[in-house]
Amino acid sequence: MRHRRTLCNTRAHHDGSPLYVGDPSPSLGDRVQVFLRTSLDLDVRQVHVRTTPDGEPRFAEATADRVTGSETWWRATVEMVNPECGYRFLLRTASGPLWLTAAGLSPLDVPDTTDFLLTANPPPPAWAADSVIYQIFPDRFARSGRDHGPDPAWVRRADWDDPIPWGRDGALQQIYGGDLWGVADRLDHIADLGANLLYLTPFFPARSNHRYDATTFDRVDPLLGGDEALRALTAAAHARGMRVIGDITLNHSGDGHEWFAEGSAVREDFYYVDGPDYATFAGVRTLPKFDHRSAELRRRLYDGPGSVIARYLDEFGLDGWRVDVAQSAGRHGGVELNDQVARLTRATVGDALLLAEHQFDASGVLRGTGWHGTMSYAGFARPVWSWLARERSTEFWGVPGPIPQYGGADVAEVMRRYAALVPWRAHTHNLTLLDSHDTARFRSIAGREHQHLGAALLLTLPGLPMIFAGDEVGVEGVHLEDGRRPFPWDTARWDQGTYRLYRDLVALRRSHEALRTGGLRWLHADADTLVYERAAPGQTLLVQVSRAAHEPFRAPAAGVSLTGGPDLRPGSPMPADGPAFHVWELEA
Amino acid sequence: MRHRRTLCNTRAHHDGSPLYVGDPSPSLGDRVQVFLRTSLDLDVRQVHVRTTPDGEPRFAEATADRVTGSETWWRATVEMVNPECGYRFLLRTASGPLWLTAAGLSPLDVPDTTDFLLTANPPPPAWAADSVIYQIFPDRFARSGRDHGPDPAWVRRADWDDPIPWGRDGALQQIYGGDLWGVADRLDHIADLGANLLYLTPFFPARSNHRYDATTFDRVDPLLGGDEALRALTAAAHARGMRVIGDITLNHSGDGHEWFAEGSAVREDFYYVDGPDYATFAGVRTLPKFDHRSAELRRRLYDGPGSVIARYLDEFGLDGWRVDVAQSAGRHGGVELNDQVARLTRATVGDALLLAEHQFDASGVLRGTGWHGTMSYAGFARPVWSWLARERSTEFWGVPGPIPQYGGADVAEVMRRYAALVPWRAHTHNLTLLDSHDTARFRSIAGREHQHLGAALLLTLPGLPMIFAGDEVGVEGVHLEDGRRPFPWDTARWDQGTYRLYRDLVALRRSHEALRTGGLRWLHADADTLVYERAAPGQTLLVQVSRAAHEPFRAPAAGVSLTGGPDLRPGSPMPADGPAFHVWELEA
Repeated sequence: MRHRRTLCNTRAHHDGSPLYVGDPSPSLGDRVQVFLRTSLDLDVRQVHVRTTPDGEPRFAEATADRVTGSETWWRATVEMVNPECGYRFLLRTASGPLWLTAAGLSPLDVPDTTDFLLTANPPPPAWAADSVIYQIFPDRFARSGRDHGPDPAWVRRADWDDPIPWGRDGALQQIYGGDLWGVADRLDHIADLGANLLYLTPFFPARSNHRYDATTFDRVDPLLGGDEALRALTAAAHARGMRVIGDITLNHSGDGHEWFAEGSAVREDFYYVDGPDYATFAGVRTLPKFDHRSAELRRRLYDGPGSVIARYLDEFGLDGWRVDVAQSAGRHGGVELNDQVARLTRATVGDALLLAEHQFDASGVLRGTGWHGTMSYAGFARPVWSWLARERSTEFWGVPGPIPQYGGADVAEVMRRYAALVPWRAHTHNLTLLDSHDTARFRSIAGREHQHLGAALLLTLPGLPMIFAGDEVGVEGVHLEDGRRPFPWDTARWDQGTYRLYRDLVALRRSHEALRTGGLRWLHADADTLVYERAAPGQTLLVQVSRAAHEPFRAPAAGVSLTGGPDLRPGSPMPADGPAFHVWELEA
Repeated sequence: MRHRRTLCNTRAHHDGSPLYVGDPSPSLGDRVQVFLRTSLDLDVRQVHVRTTPDGEPRFAEATADRVTGSETWWRATVEMVNPECGYRFLLRTASGPLWLTAAGLSPLDVPDTTDFLLTANPPPPAWAADSVIYQIFPDRFARSGRDHGPDPAWVRRADWDDPIPWGRDGALQQIYGGDLWGVADRLDHIADLGANLLYLTPFFPARSNHRYDATTFDRVDPLLGGDEALRALTAAAHARGMRVIGDITLNHSGDGHEWFAEGSAVREDFYYVDGPDYATFAGVRTLPKFDHRSAELRRRLYDGPGSVIARYLDEFGLDGWRVDVAQSAGRHGGVELNDQVARLTRATVGDALLLAEHQFDASGVLRGTGWHGTMSYAGFARPVWSWLARERSTEFWGVPGPIPQYGGADVAEVMRRYAALVPWRAHTHNLTLLDSHDTARFRSIAGREHQHLGAALLLTLPGLPMIFAGDEVGVEGVHLEDGRRPFPWDTARWDQGTYRLYRDLVALRRSHEALRTGGLRWLHADADTLVYERAAPGQTLLVQVSRAAHEPFRAPAAGVSLTGGPDLRPGSPMPADGPAFHVWELEA
């Protein structure tokens, strides 16, 4: 007997998107309308919204606003008494009370940690939500061929097609010669792909090809074309409607930094120096750790006008920053200034974008007035790898053992666990990614077909999707350093199918509001299939991502395929192929 | 066919108690040994401990320390790099990896919020863990018969046996005439019960019988015997080895407070005054809210020597404080100083005990250097009411609708949800309670038999158990104010069975280290039965609390009954009566 599969509408849903929240960026004192949808078969008799003004719980009854199809929509009000307001719903049903928080429905009492969160703090720049990010490791993206003068002594030149010399002494000094002029020369490629936000890994002078060991923050590395090249690049990008963000280490500098030099007047003040000893990032001697107790360090680096953070926005046209090792910046033994680093930097960037590296659980730093978002390794990349990896013995963010084996339901559960701890606005401004300069290439982990599924998830789920330059043409890389292979400009070496797929998915996202700012409802998740809805006012998309062929679901509504597959008729079987993905726009 | 019930040992367990943590109060920089026990049938191949020094995850392999019976004990080291160190275990088993955090085992990735937490911050006073708290509402406990001079105009005198006039105009001004001399006269009763920490609700002059509306903090209310009575009471208590804590409103004062008076020089500075308007606690006009931005308010109230907080410890012999409405103190609109109130007060109390009222989820305030513990309504009282209430239409901490219907498994789950979010040390210094001056009497909610089960839970689970004076002799009270009935000193009106039961349970706790400081393992939880282990080095107790008769479990080991029931022989049936509870000490 064949089991007939039905899409399980979630029985009750709310999230922070415009379909459910009257004003996603309210001001202190505003009264915000919030909406909740409940399935009629849940038999909800009464709904209250619980808020906690000034820490004191308060219940207010919700109104049944309307009934549509099989759902009731409830309306309630959240008063923005404090800058960040948690709220949750209490549903009285025929079979007892249920709490609805961002962690889902629970008949049992739920701690406040997963309350929905509305924030009256200043929002990220409005353009951020429409971004598709393209990550560029400047030494490996494109050569301009310009002469940058003599090389510093540490440089070892490599040809563009040389294999990555990982494991060899001096591997980090291998320079392939990409520069910022080269990036400017290749904006056509990025525009064709449809990405509109360039994220450049560090461009400061350093002693390695990754440049996370800056020797100064005063100028752009001459090897990359210097200040002039960065100014030219941001101008060219802006002329095309693209934006550019930089990358800075607020946690440490290189040991070759001018501030750290023997005899430097600020060495003792800016670093944790104790005789010949000094604090480092993760024990790496070349990366001395900043001591953020120094007001002068803060002033020079990120606190106020004239700081490094401010200067590259003001003088070089950068549109924001990504902050390296944000989980550790300002934190050393008994010194706990991590939150202050984020808050002061945020105050300095003004209306620019501020993202932070956080390879682990970033929920502790995504409230308040710090980072707009963080890199979503924990809430996105890791569960996707765990579902789609073929090569399971790869390095997995330092977690011992092989990559865990997730089913699709596990992916949805883990994504929800992380999302539930932060304001919706932070969740949707987290940078989602399949890989980066800090990982193996996802294609080498997951294989070509699963890379395509990963790309579909990346470009249809909430977050600011980031593509690591080369992913879109099928670049491989079996470990972190190998993933930094130079971009193959010979199009004969591209996987044209992968390229078309990325381009189509980027276009799909950029042309559909629901994918950029819509709510997310998981409609079904099992071992091999994820089905979810992205919905904005007036636009509802249905996404099905399948790791394997499966029994078909019945379509919940009529829908037009946006991915070249069959359209949906209500109640008829949906496609059941796999590995495959489909996106439909549902009829209103 | 009868189902044979077996105690399910948890498959893997760790908590912050001495059996599992080499030093529960380490200093910064210490290396602390931690132990994990895993069931052999879990087939654990390898264990790592994950720490996050300076925010950066680090894995270290654990060593199989020993095998005892059906378990392996693993040993690992947590280095106290930061004042508060989170850690968790990664278990590689035959069927895949498992994370163990304070929320339990999970095959899926778990956010850091439930990591085990060790803290190098200064510990609570060592005596706190041995406390059994006795809560006294001074107007209702005992009259000394002394003359306190003429009554203030607001007072309405009641006879000791008058019914509570709740709902009547002026009910809060009804004075039954208990005083602090009366408390001192009745220390025999408290000693006989076995309680050793008196918690007095406010003793400051006010305009109501509850005195949460202080008119000054400079002296003890003359109606209660004044300063002399408090000094005499603390001295008498100390002479018997008892301690005494007071109760203070750091959130607000009464509108009759000298600081709030028209013409007061500090009125505008100490309160949120805006013309005729002012901020209040929860909209109550008689309770104007303090503005903690005022350095002078902080200095007078809680910041440093000479403050109210310091003065009653230094000059009156108080051993600590309970802080009223701690969830709201220092928090008003855009002003967020809640954490600062807690930190500064903690710094001022030095080695005294600092507990805080928190009727809801207090997990957000139990890290760092604030309150030692909070009142565990959410993590204890509410789940116990939900399991044991007979009268379900009672007021339930403002949550609309009847009291939810929990099974025993729900109780264990909810208790674990709250405990998992805070350091073990804070969890074990939370004040556990069945009721208080702020609730109906648990006996009136649950009935006599279920009150006894609640008392068993109260005195055998982690936390600092509090008995609201009168509970131990069966005082009733169907709502908050009714629960404040005067203590019935005529022993003919006592439920002697209830009294013996409380006395025996207090004695059991005070004579068994495992109940005061031991770890907690839930061994079984279903609708009607909870079975758990409390274990300290050299002492293991087994507790079974049953709401109804049930199929018997088989005893996991030999054990001697501490509650007058049958002893346990390994594999033989355990008692299956209910409502009932049993405690056994297991053989080593």
